[in-house]
Amino acid sequence: MTRKEFTADDILALEQRYRANFINSLGGFKSLALIGTLSATGQSNLAPFNSFFHVGANPPLFGFIVRPDSVERHTLNNILETNVFTVNHVHESFFKAAHQASARYPQNVSEFDAVGLKEEYIPKHHAPFVAESHIKIGARLCEKTDIKLNETILIVAAITYVSIPADIVMADGFVDIEKAGTITCAGLDSYHTTRRIARLSYAKTGSTPGEI
Amino acid sequence: MTRKEFTADDILALEQRYRANFINSLGGFKSLALIGTLSATGQSNLAPFNSFFHVGANPPLFGFIVRPDSVERHTLNNILETNVFTVNHVHESFFKAAHQASARYPQNVSEFDAVGLKEEYIPKHHAPFVAESHIKIGARLCEKTDIKLNETILIVAAITYVSIPADIVMADGFVDIEKAGTITCAGLDSYHTTRRIARLSYAKTGSTPGEI
Repeated sequence: MTRKEFTADDILALEQRYRANFINSLGGFKSLALIGTLSATGQSNLAPFNSFFHVGANPPLFGFIVRPDSVERHTLNNILETNVFTVNHVHESFFKAAHQASARYPQNVSEFDAVGLKEEYIPKHHAPFVAESHIKIGARLCEKTDIKLNETILIVAAITYVSIPADIVMADGFVDIEKAGTITCAGLDSYHTTRRIARLSYAKTGSTPGEI
Repeated sequence: MTRKEFTADDILALEQRYRANFINSLGGFKSLALIGTLSATGQSNLAPFNSFFHVGANPPLFGFIVRPDSVERHTLNNILETNVFTVNHVHESFFKAAHQASARYPQNVSEFDAVGLKEEYIPKHHAPFVAESHIKIGARLCEKTDIKLNETILIVAAITYVSIPADIVMADGFVDIEKAGTITCAGLDSYHTTRRIARLSYAKTGSTPGEI
């Protein structure tokens, strides 16, 4: 198999759009979810994010990155204004709508309307969920950290609400997101379904992991 | 479809191990890679991570989270000592070995030896790559930020080297990681292959995204 090598200088010399595709692909498969927000004045907003990562289970925390010069700034402004937002998993049935929500709509346009997804509200949570999503998470802003290297922003948030199909929660707390139809993405624009190979038992020295 | 709801109090009341499984599942599918390091005294180390996220393409930056109280501390110590590490994609052919590398081996044991993966070195890069991995990335530490909420650490690093099969790099820079056999994971222990639905064209207002 022929291999190709890129040094740091090779990478910096790549054409800008080529480099964006290339570097975005290298991190492996990514989470994909739609973040729903509502401005203080009642304007709803929806945007796809693929940089979610687990920060901790107790308290339940996750993080994601926001680029303030992109369409993500409406999401960021609303989160900073209201402190709350929603995280909604994406399924094959509406992956094109999720992708389209990344277009640069003006601030007074709701991406829910523009891409054809339905807002859903619950009591005591200011931000809209995506009705079509099987896994819906309510979140509250906890910490905002500037990444000085390139002026992106790290948001760390707490999970304050979860709504999921009852039959995907296993006896040990594992949520079978594949059964729920959650999809994954790669690079900037590639969408994928999954097929489980196995779950493995907790790894210990002196034994080999078994399938569970 | 019966649904199940969890409030913030419900989540905090969950049994610890149940909550770890539950919260780790909610973020969607995740990147999965093995980080290779070499201590200043020449002890190699390998550990799986699933919290990689894209930070920027110019300069090429990514981030990940380290829990200092876990097996990840050997990785962290080596990165802080030497500034460099490697990121290696995982394939179905060695996913059990990758999982096993998360066991708590003592500092003087190399997980490469313990789980049966081969160290590979290139000139001018202190840290070992995983020979069996089709996609290998060399990285240099750029920024270390403490997440005060739960004492985890955010590492931001620059991509300084990439080695990939020539036939998975598309004309527009997209790297077909599915073709390379990269797998994804969910929760703490679930491993998945993928099947592409489609790549979609750049989203613009006033048009619908096409498949590319």
